[in-house]
Formats: sequence, C-alpha cells, structure tokens
Amino acid sequence: MVTMRDVAQRANVSIATVSFVINGTKRVAPATRARIEAAIEELDYRRNVVARALASSRTRILALLHPDLEIRPNATVIQFVMSAAHGARERGYDLVLWPVNDDEQMSHLLAGGLVDGALLMEVQIRDSRVDRLIASRVPFALIGRTEDDDLPFVDIDFTATIDQAVEHLRSYGHEHIALVTQRTKAPPENEPGRIRRAEAAYLHAMAALGRSPAVVTVEGTSAGGREAARTLHERFPDTTAVILLNEGASAGLVKGARALGLTVPGDLSIISASTTRELGEMIEPSLTVMAAPAPELGRLAADALIDQLEGVQDVPPHILIPCTLVPGESVGPAPSRP
Amino acid sequence: MVTMRDVAQRANVSIATVSFVINGTKRVAPATRARIEAAIEELDYRRNVVARALASSRTRILALLHPDLEIRPNATVIQFVMSAAHGARERGYDLVLWPVNDDEQMSHLLAGGLVDGALLMEVQIRDSRVDRLIASRVPFALIGRTEDDDLPFVDIDFTATIDQAVEHLRSYGHEHIALVTQRTKAPPENEPGRIRRAEAAYLHAMAALGRSPAVVTVEGTSAGGREAARTLHERFPDTTAVILLNEGASAGLVKGARALGLTVPGDLSIISASTTRELGEMIEPSLTVMAAPAPELGRLAADALIDQLEGVQDVPPHILIPCTLVPGESVGPAPSRP
Repeated sequence: MVTMRDVAQRANVSIATVSFVINGTKRVAPATRARIEAAIEELDYRRNVVARALASSRTRILALLHPDLEIRPNATVIQFVMSAAHGARERGYDLVLWPVNDDEQMSHLLAGGLVDGALLMEVQIRDSRVDRLIASRVPFALIGRTEDDDLPFVDIDFTATIDQAVEHLRSYGHEHIALVTQRTKAPPENEPGRIRRAEAAYLHAMAALGRSPAVVTVEGTSAGGREAARTLHERFPDTTAVILLNEGASAGLVKGARALGLTVPGDLSIISASTTRELGEMIEPSLTVMAAPAPELGRLAADALIDQLEGVQDVPPHILIPCTLVPGESVGPAPSRP
Repeated sequence: MVTMRDVAQRANVSIATVSFVINGTKRVAPATRARIEAAIEELDYRRNVVARALASSRTRILALLHPDLEIRPNATVIQFVMSAAHGARERGYDLVLWPVNDDEQMSHLLAGGLVDGALLMEVQIRDSRVDRLIASRVPFALIGRTEDDDLPFVDIDFTATIDQAVEHLRSYGHEHIALVTQRTKAPPENEPGRIRRAEAAYLHAMAALGRSPAVVTVEGTSAGGREAARTLHERFPDTTAVILLNEGASAGLVKGARALGLTVPGDLSIISASTTRELGEMIEPSLTVMAAPAPELGRLAADALIDQLEGVQDVPPHILIPCTLVPGESVGPAPSRP
C-alpha cells in the first residue's frame, strides 16, 4: 500500500510537506507542490487519502446547515457562510453547504458519516435540529442560540446592539422609537432566537424610558418595508425613529415613508441593525447601519467546531459580539411636535 | 462487516430505502427514517458508508470554486451557488464550497481525492484552473466560458442579453448608449469571459447602429458607480442611456447621476444587466434590470457535472440562457437635444 512516506520520498520532500499540500493547510512553494502532485499521480495515492480518513474515522469535512439559503439569502447571511468556509479552509477542513435542512437532510447528515461536525445557522429558540445532533453525538456549534445558553455558540450580541441603537437615536432627541422585525412562518416558540432577543432588549429599553413600545413585524422584502411604513403611520403616528432588524425591508421602508410624504431623516430617522455597510450605501439617503460582525463570527464558529473536534477546548465557547454603528444620512434630530 | 443489507433487515425495509436515507436522494416517511437511523446507530454502520465510497472510488462530493466569494459576493453569484448546491443535493451529491482557489486550493482539490468533480465560477478567457483540471482528469463543468467553446459549460447568453437591452433602449428613442463594466485586477487575456463577451456584443450593436461606442470600466462598488457617472458626464456627454454590467455599481451610478444634477430617467436611462429583481427594487427609482437566470443555471451546472460522473451524457453540454428584462422606472424616452 502506498503511504504518504512513499509520496514524500518520490518527491524528495518531508512527510509534513506532503500533508500541507493534501490538506491545504500551509503554503508550499509552487515547484515543490508540482513535484508532490506528480508523485501522487504516479503512485496513484488518491484513494489512500480517503482510506486514511476512514482509518482515523475523520473526513475533515464540516456541514453548514441553513434552512432558507435558496429562498432569499441576504447579504449578512452570505458573509457568515463565506467567512465560515474560509475559516475552515485555513485549518485544513472543507465546508459542505446544505442549503436545506428538513428531516431528509438531517438524516443524510446523521446517517451518512460524511461529516465530522456541523454548524447551524438561523437557530431557533427551540430547535429540533439541535436535539437530533445531541442525540446522535455529532459535534456541532451554533451561529445563534437556542434557549439553552450552555451549548457551544457564537452570536451577535443583540442586547448591546439594540441598546446602542436606542442610545444613538436618543442622542438626537428621539423619544418615540419603533422596532421593525421580520415575520417568519414559525410558531412563536420556534422563532429565530435573534428576533426574540432583539425584541426583549427593545422592550426593556422602552420600559426604562417610560415609553410604550411599537413593534411591527413584516416580511423581509421591499414590499414588507413599504407595509411597515404604512403600519407605523397608521398605528403609531408619534413615531419619529425606527430600528430595523429586517435588512431585506430596509429599502422598502425608505420608499414607503417617502410615498407617505415623509422625509428621511427630516420626519423619520432610520437605523438598519445587523446588516452590511454595503447595504446602507446602496440606499438613498445612505442608511445609518449597525454592521453585523459576520466576517469575525463565521470564522469563530468554524474555530469553535474544529477546536471541539481536535480536543483543544476545555469549555464550550460562548462568544457574543455586538454590531458596529456606521453612521449614514438616515438619522437626524427628532422633529419638534406642536 | 456490516452491510447496507444488514441495516435494511434490522429496520425491516428495502435496501433501496436505506440508500435513499443515506444519500438523501428521496423522501422517506419519518417513522421509516427513524427506524433506519436507529439500525445504523445500533450496527455502527457509519464508517462503512465512507468505506463504500472508497470501494467505488466515489465520494459523491462536488467542489464549487469561486475566486472572490469572501471579498464581495454579489446577489447573483449567491443565487448561482445556492442553486448549484440545491441541484446537487437533489441528486444525492454534496457541494463543498471553496471560497478561494489559488494554487493551494487547486492542489488540495487535485491531490486530496476528496471530490468527484468540480464546478468553476468566474471563468476567465484563459483560465489556468481549467488547464490543471484537464491535466489531472478531474471531471468539471464551467459556469461561464473560456475561449474554448468545446468544454462543458452553462453560461448567461450575454450577446442576446446585450442585444435585448440595446433594443429596449432604442424603442425609447435612445441613440447614445454607453456600457459600464467591472474593473478586474486580471490582465486582459485573463479577464472574466462575461466581460469580454458582453463588450463584444455591445461594440457589435453600436457598429450596426453607426454610433461610436462609450465603454467605462469601474469597480463593482457604490464608489465605482459614482465614478462611472462622472466619467460618462465628462468624456461622453451625449450619453442618454447606460447599460450596466456591474451590479455592485448600480446604486452608485444613480446617486452619482443625481449628484451631477441629472434625473433618472429624465436625463439618463439605466438598465442593470445580469443582476436580480430584488436589487432593482432596492434602488430609487426602481431599476429596469435584466434578471440573470442564475437559479436555473446553477442547477443545470450541477446536472451537467453529475451527468458526466454518471456516464449519462453523450456530448459536453453547452447551455446558454439570456437574462430576462424586468421593466422598472429607470428607463424613459430619450431627452430631445437642441
């Protein structure tokens, strides 16, 4: 049987160097790499790589599960996916994308033996996928959180994010601040943890200010944003500022406000939270955003999972990073009321 | 050694049903699936799945290579990636995402024996990745085209797309139509095929109309779009309509035109080609777009590769689909010149 040592001898390099090339874990000079590839080809080493994975019960493949990727992937989700894939590659792992994760896909994951572990996105307060992973002992890390804070997770710190958004608007004199979130088809106990946590932080902040809350929930689309503008206008006419936790509705909210004869930020200030700088720049006027730490968190999630797999982790990681305020042109002084 | 037959007997189902669950290829009733998973767990069948892949020299894993995914993935690229992943899953294959494809990643692909085949995106006119895949005999399909039209590919029909955009603008009386494309760091012979082909179609259309062409190349960002507006204004002041083949610059072009005192579409009509309907809706005024057939082409690319792997293909597929015109509010009658 051909071993990695045979390849190393044939290519006249160390075994470590062969490993760097095969696992893609370290930069190797092009000429050296070409020699190693030639040796692998000549010795027909290909199948032995898979055999080695079998012998070690490890495939160095991770799965990323997201329920809605095909439907309407938003810019922030994509940053998470790409940074997780990049983080995995840097440590010599490959990331498989599972754009759906119904029961079929979970069975494939659990029964197939293909992957060493899984990353879950769009985590719900109660999430049956997590229950199945725990039962099957497949290692995992969450991008998001269930109600159980003991599981390994990385997440946006929605409480700190909402608090900072409220504070920013308050510094411009706003008292009547509404929250616009995203409608999901899930029953309340299954809704994404991010919506639950952001709403709780918002309600807490409004209570501290002695203001009654105004929460509107719409689809994550331009049509949803226009609906939000109308609903705020009819049901909460005192509103002078909006915090959006629904990036897909951002452009529609601005267009909807304008259609009602409101100027942004003259009549209505807007902060779009948990989104990208680029989205803010696309809209007229440029939106003030709270940029999601997606590039950092995707990598940290991959690290959290790989640390588990490689046994270099004492306690499950619990990482929270708030969004970063990026001022645009959509926040201004609160209009004075007669 | 535990076989799939053992699992089938223990779970009291057919071998085919076990295969459906393991490969995720067909819907199986939840109760049946649970029985099969329990049998797999009890018999410790996991490693045998990998063993089977080894025995057949097949892993049922496909790689998707894209050079720029982490930098600034645009909406259309994401639709390609997601639809390819979905298409692969429907035929029982998993799609690994390779967000970089420098030489390190190519070596990992060629030497690792991990994947059965590869899909390439952002294909260049001359693409060294393609040369290496051909040399190593790893099956592949292109999303895009090199200069060699005999390779298996799916691609947007840029010629038909540009022709339709020109025709649409002509029907509004436009004579002076500019093209804005995306700047890449590649030398001309390595630039993405889509830019080369769209430009050729545009030059051909302008020659047919007896008009001198106006081509501006900028970064795929809001800043790039504003630069394009200024450059058109200074160098091609007769321009009354723009075809964009640079979706990242769309919003910036509108903002930049406005900053120069031009109204859209009063003074300048805009069509953004090869992008998504959603991007058009986000911008004010809503852009007329040529929507990319990304959801279809991603799946067709996965099919093209899998057909090769499964030997159900006589000739390499050559699939071209044009974009679809989605009228918005950014195209109007050409302004009359004194």
